[in-house]
Amino acid sequence: MDKIKIDTGAFGFPMPVVLIGANVAGKANFMAVAWVCKVNYKPLIIGASINKRQYTGEGIIENETFSINVPGTYLVELTDHCGLVSGRNTDKSELFDVFYGDLKTAPMVKQCPLCAECKLVDTYSTETNNFFHGEVVSVYSEEKYLSEGALDNSKTDLFVLVMPEMNYIKLGEPIGKAWEIGKKLVKD
Amino acid sequence: MDKIKIDTGAFGFPMPVVLIGANVAGKANFMAVAWVCKVNYKPLIIGASINKRQYTGEGIIENETFSINVPGTYLVELTDHCGLVSGRNTDKSELFDVFYGDLKTAPMVKQCPLCAECKLVDTYSTETNNFFHGEVVSVYSEEKYLSEGALDNSKTDLFVLVMPEMNYIKLGEPIGKAWEIGKKLVKD
Repeated sequence: MDKIKIDTGAFGFPMPVVLIGANVAGKANFMAVAWVCKVNYKPLIIGASINKRQYTGEGIIENETFSINVPGTYLVELTDHCGLVSGRNTDKSELFDVFYGDLKTAPMVKQCPLCAECKLVDTYSTETNNFFHGEVVSVYSEEKYLSEGALDNSKTDLFVLVMPEMNYIKLGEPIGKAWEIGKKLVKD
Repeated sequence: MDKIKIDTGAFGFPMPVVLIGANVAGKANFMAVAWVCKVNYKPLIIGASINKRQYTGEGIIENETFSINVPGTYLVELTDHCGLVSGRNTDKSELFDVFYGDLKTAPMVKQCPLCAECKLVDTYSTETNNFFHGEVVSVYSEEKYLSEGALDNSKTDLFVLVMPEMNYIKLGEPIGKAWEIGKKLVKD
């Protein structure tokens, strides 16, 4: 088992795929983002890295709000489409049924099983990217995605992005419970 | 299709699961981390959010280096185990075959199909967490995980973490190419 060095650009892990929404100049716009993760637990803060060229970023800075919408596999083409065309040249406000929540300016996607509206609490900048820190203010789903009041991901049909193949991959079978299956290895 | 508000803590998306390695007081230590994402493309910078109580974080601050190791499903129990026990009380240096690269102080896991050693370039702090920004210096894999010189994820057998079920989920089937399948929706 000999390790070999490979191109640093090849490094990665399965990434979530979300639609980030923002109003830009008064119109809803959406982009596909895979560089997103939780940053803080309480309050729940999520960070998303967005290239400074992106039109959506302008709306996040303008309104200090944005949404994070988690699409199911049935939205994979539309999600990819949102990553291919810029709101600067193409009106993406009609691609989805859009709704607004408490923050009034964070457009959310009705077709997504799970949506969050976020208040921008900080921005960390590199030369090319803004890493927007959004505090999750409200979260929306539908009865059909819940079981006994809790979100049930056997009903949401989510997918991830895997590089360098650039493949969207459907989630497969559960292989164990976190904070549980490793217990058998704990020595007394 | 009526949206209803649900608990903000229920918000999430499929998350990667990696083992973050650091030397703490001269000994290799590893923890399981799901709050990790890319932050910058060139140079490749990856951010990982780690609670300030975590022992591994002390090593990252001490050496200003850390590793990110991407486990396959055959490591799911050991990975979970690393999230259950703290290096403060348990020696985790013998759990894996450890190797070091260019940075000399970022312990990597031979059993993982993909490993990166990172140089700490910045730390963003909240009250409870440090979000460590690591520049990827070198990446390691093995011939058996490559096809024609490139990483081939049909051979790496990766998994993700899905909440609120706390399920580790094996990756399933590809459902389309990113930056490709949405093209059919682009209007001329």
